[in-house]
Order: sequence, then structure tokens, then C-alpha cells
Amino acid sequence: MTVLYLDDLAPGQCFGGAARIRIEPERVASFATEFDPQPFHLDAQAATQTLFGGLAASGWHTAAATMRLLVDSDFKPAGGIVGAGFEELRWPLPVRPGDELRVESEVLEVRASRSRPQQGLVRLRTSTYNQHNELVQVSVGSLVVQRRPASAPGVN
Amino acid sequence: MTVLYLDDLAPGQCFGGAARIRIEPERVASFATEFDPQPFHLDAQAATQTLFGGLAASGWHTAAATMRLLVDSDFKPAGGIVGAGFEELRWPLPVRPGDELRVESEVLEVRASRSRPQQGLVRLRTSTYNQHNELVQVSVGSLVVQRRPASAPGVN
Repeated sequence: MTVLYLDDLAPGQCFGGAARIRIEPERVASFATEFDPQPFHLDAQAATQTLFGGLAASGWHTAAATMRLLVDSDFKPAGGIVGAGFEELRWPLPVRPGDELRVESEVLEVRASRSRPQQGLVRLRTSTYNQHNELVQVSVGSLVVQRRPASAPGVN
Repeated sequence: MTVLYLDDLAPGQCFGGAARIRIEPERVASFATEFDPQPFHLDAQAATQTLFGGLAASGWHTAAATMRLLVDSDFKPAGGIVGAGFEELRWPLPVRPGDELRVESEVLEVRASRSRPQQGLVRLRTSTYNQHNELVQVSVGSLVVQRRPASAPGVN
């Protein structure tokens, strides 16, 4: 798959892919046991009495699965996917055990670095959907992406 | 430990705890294999040639460990720790295999919900430090916190 340099990216470009991740019920429980041990992630009975109205995956599980989907998508920036930081990260709907997730990403902004001429920042919005095409996570983050070295071939 | 209702929280309150999580080298590798399979998290030799200059934990691993530290801290909001969303999430320094993390949180803002009188939002900044007291992650997020029911005892 083509590696994308900063110079190849522009606002409006969209990326995605066929990759799907099923959030297995056992993994919801084991992830939460390790990282987010709260009743709404671990106890089906207790979860009905919470804001979630039933078992839900930890938001960090959804975020981690989203990262995996992004790594497996056709978005292949030079130097890898390196997050400088996020300005937005939300979970509009809970992810339920057994849900199947996919991602779509859109480039919002591309800018070269003044202090480091060999790289720049790409603002990317990544939307995570469940099998009903409902938005379960949205993030807007800035990634560090390498510029094309003089020696590298162009994509055009 | 005292459960905190929205009514008990105010800007400037700080929370933390004695909890520490060591980011074990094998867990860096297994987390990255599942969720973030990129060379700088998995291949010590290749990692030296990347922006990280050596092996680093996935930022999502750091975020998940931070959640666990927060759950284990003395911050015990009524209804659990339920994130509505984040407006900032950054990793100023890489987490290295073997690093030991801790968290500190500060309440930035508390506001009651107009549409849902039984709850409100708490803006919380959570800072994650390594064993050298270097900041490795900072997040600012809004949590949904329950108001004290008329029947519940006050803390004062």
C-alpha cells in the first residue's frame, strides 16, 4: 500500500477500509478488569441500574480498537500513525458486547512545521461506527507526518 | 471511601492516591500487538529509527492505565467515573517499557444540568506522571456525576 507523505495529504481526503473488529463479550470483561473495573463494564445485573442501562465496553477499549482499525485502514502515513494529541474524543453511544466496529477518517487540515522542515501536522477526524452505522466514537487529533524526502518517488 | 456527589465537588479540589502501575515490557508488546501494531511499540531495533528514538508504549495503553489509576484513586464520584468526552488528550513524553505511572486530578469546573436535574458535569484535568515525575499524559474531560438525592446523607 502506498505510503503517504505530508505532501500527499490534503483536507477532504477520506480513508477507511474493510477492517472490522468485533468487541467480544469476554474481551469487554477482561479489558475492564485490567483497566476500567466499574460495574457498568463488568456486572450485567448492576449495569442495568446505571447510566448505560446495561453492559458497555470501556471507552478506552473502544478507543484502542479504533486505533487498531486505523492502523489496518488504507491511511498509511510515512513514519507511522503518531498522535501528537487530541482536541476532541467523545463516545456518543455505548459500545455493547458483541458490537462490530469500523472506522472512517477525514483529513481536516495539513500544515508543515516551521521549526522541523522534515515533518508537519495533519488534523484528522476519525469516526467509529457500530454494525448499525451508529456513531460510537469521534475523535479529532493531530498526527506527526513526515515530508517527502528529496530522494523519495512521488505518488503522481 | 466517601462517595462524592456533584454537590460535594468544587473547582480546585485535587485527587490522587498511592496507586502506581508499572508498564511491564511484555504488556507494552501484547497491548500493541492487539491494538497498535506499529514498529515503535514492538521492535526495539526499528524503534531507534523512529520519532520515539526507542520502544514506547502505545498512547492508548497509557490512557487505559491512567483510567485504572483514576478508578483506584480517592476520586469516587457517585455513579462511577463516566466520561462524557474529552477536550484535550496529549502525550508530552513517551512511556517507556518498565516506567511506573501515577495520576493526579484536579476539578476545573462543576455545573448542574438544566435538562437533567439529578446530574451534572464535572470538568477534570488528569495528569499522568512517570517515576521521574515527568508528565507523560494530560487529559481534560467532562464526567457525568450524580447530584445528591434528598435521602442521601451529606458529607459535612
